[in-house]
Amino acid sequence: MILTVTLNTAVDLTYRVPRLEPHGSHRVREVTERPGGKGLNVARVLASLGQAAVITGFAGGPTGSQLRELLNAAPGAAGLTDALVRTKGHTRRTVAVVDESTGDTTQLNEPGPHIAPEEWSAFLAAYRELLPSADAVALCGSLPPGVPVGAYATLVRECRTADIPVLLDTSGEPLLRGLAARPEIVKPNSEELAGITGSSDPVRGAHQARRRGAHAVAVSLGPDGLLAVTPDGSWRATPPRQLKGNPTGAGDAAVAGLLSGTVERLSWAERITRAVALSAASVRAPAAGEFDEAAYADLLPQVEAVEA
Amino acid sequence: MILTVTLNTAVDLTYRVPRLEPHGSHRVREVTERPGGKGLNVARVLASLGQAAVITGFAGGPTGSQLRELLNAAPGAAGLTDALVRTKGHTRRTVAVVDESTGDTTQLNEPGPHIAPEEWSAFLAAYRELLPSADAVALCGSLPPGVPVGAYATLVRECRTADIPVLLDTSGEPLLRGLAARPEIVKPNSEELAGITGSSDPVRGAHQARRRGAHAVAVSLGPDGLLAVTPDGSWRATPPRQLKGNPTGAGDAAVAGLLSGTVERLSWAERITRAVALSAASVRAPAAGEFDEAAYADLLPQVEAVEA
Repeated sequence: MILTVTLNTAVDLTYRVPRLEPHGSHRVREVTERPGGKGLNVARVLASLGQAAVITGFAGGPTGSQLRELLNAAPGAAGLTDALVRTKGHTRRTVAVVDESTGDTTQLNEPGPHIAPEEWSAFLAAYRELLPSADAVALCGSLPPGVPVGAYATLVRECRTADIPVLLDTSGEPLLRGLAARPEIVKPNSEELAGITGSSDPVRGAHQARRRGAHAVAVSLGPDGLLAVTPDGSWRATPPRQLKGNPTGAGDAAVAGLLSGTVERLSWAERITRAVALSAASVRAPAAGEFDEAAYADLLPQVEAVEA
Repeated sequence: MILTVTLNTAVDLTYRVPRLEPHGSHRVREVTERPGGKGLNVARVLASLGQAAVITGFAGGPTGSQLRELLNAAPGAAGLTDALVRTKGHTRRTVAVVDESTGDTTQLNEPGPHIAPEEWSAFLAAYRELLPSADAVALCGSLPPGVPVGAYATLVRECRTADIPVLLDTSGEPLLRGLAARPEIVKPNSEELAGITGSSDPVRGAHQARRRGAHAVAVSLGPDGLLAVTPDGSWRATPPRQLKGNPTGAGDAAVAGLLSGTVERLSWAERITRAVALSAASVRAPAAGEFDEAAYADLLPQVEAVEA
């Protein structure tokens, strides 16, 4: 199985309003509730690919219960195992307010519950118990308050010790600290990469991230696909055309592609080909954590990895 | 005891953000969660006054459980009884986004769960069981989807049959229909009154609302206090000074004042005096459903009802 870690899970709410008027009062026309958090999306895409996935991280309070219910009812739930660790604090919500007059979205993200030291220890114990059954691990997203900033470095080191490939998808200081623990793969987007390297050139930034400790660096370039800088060489893969749809979760679909390719011991060129096709097919699906299977089958043979 | 009915209860969230940027992404700095719904606020103020109060209406889903937990933990909870009826649909949320740079609030209100016909019947049965123990009833707020627009008329009629004084605090069509069932008191604000009578003059509007069926009409005039048009005469009461604070829930505190005064058989002049003092003291409290007891004790002798 593939283990995905989401320390700052969320219940994602989408509110549709006819028009957002700052300082006005709005009747929300439609409410959508989804299980939120990058690692949850990764696991759901993996499960839809037929790859068993286990979800861990934190969940607590009424929003935590709701998250677990939503997860259990989500497409692809059959292949998922919920191994979330209970917290006293309440799982956060995120609210995306869609202005139907313009299609624009205003995003409001709660900070997440404060994690007590004994809760972090309980998580570490659960993580160590799950590791021996894992073929690969994904560490995804931001850290909730109270979790040490070096948390991902700790989790990466556990994988290195157990000789399990680990992918890190985060940003800022937690990414910098995590890099130093020498993860197998990091997958920043170009902004996140620039944020830690200071270089706006993804190729230069990726080489720098490798020097800082990552074995391989996969940079997501939004609609322009993926760049991989690895010990075997560098490749770039681009979707055959621009697809219209919902880009939320496209990066998580790419992570699922990279990880399933890693577990199947595909070449790097094949891994990023799969990741780009999955990512593009996820844009065609209504929500993060899902992809359009027909679009994936159609796109996969059309994506080509070229040496960069 | 006093029975308060809130058919469209809510979990009220307040998000503080440094500055609200439409179409931007925001980290919420602080989240506050409170039990929401006018009748809940009325009951909490009553309980703080030492008057036993029973809360009914609907609650369902994880947000419904959370509402009940919040209610149980709220100031004044000791005097409250939770008689909410379970629904399959989920209790709604409201989100107030406070822009800390200006102090302005942007309000987002979910519509509420769809109430099935058998859930409405279950509520009616529960309501009929509670009525014989009630000394007075308050019917508060909007109707969730699925509840018949004549719901308040039905609930008023049950009180008339049982000879229990009933106060109706709602707006629009549910208020118009409710009026026709001849409630003891209606408490619109001046806008709500204008909405059903077409008259922007509160005195004229109140007389019209009486002709439409209300025994007495108490119009809340915001910071200018209350106007009562009753079979015994008309009075106006005004707070001695403008108080700074949070006006949310001031109308609910006024309802609590009117109802407790009704149960104690106070004169109308005394009832609106109490209602205005409580309403002003609630502005000094941090949240709806609460009032500043020292401010109340200070204000009460300073409020005077004059014939209008």
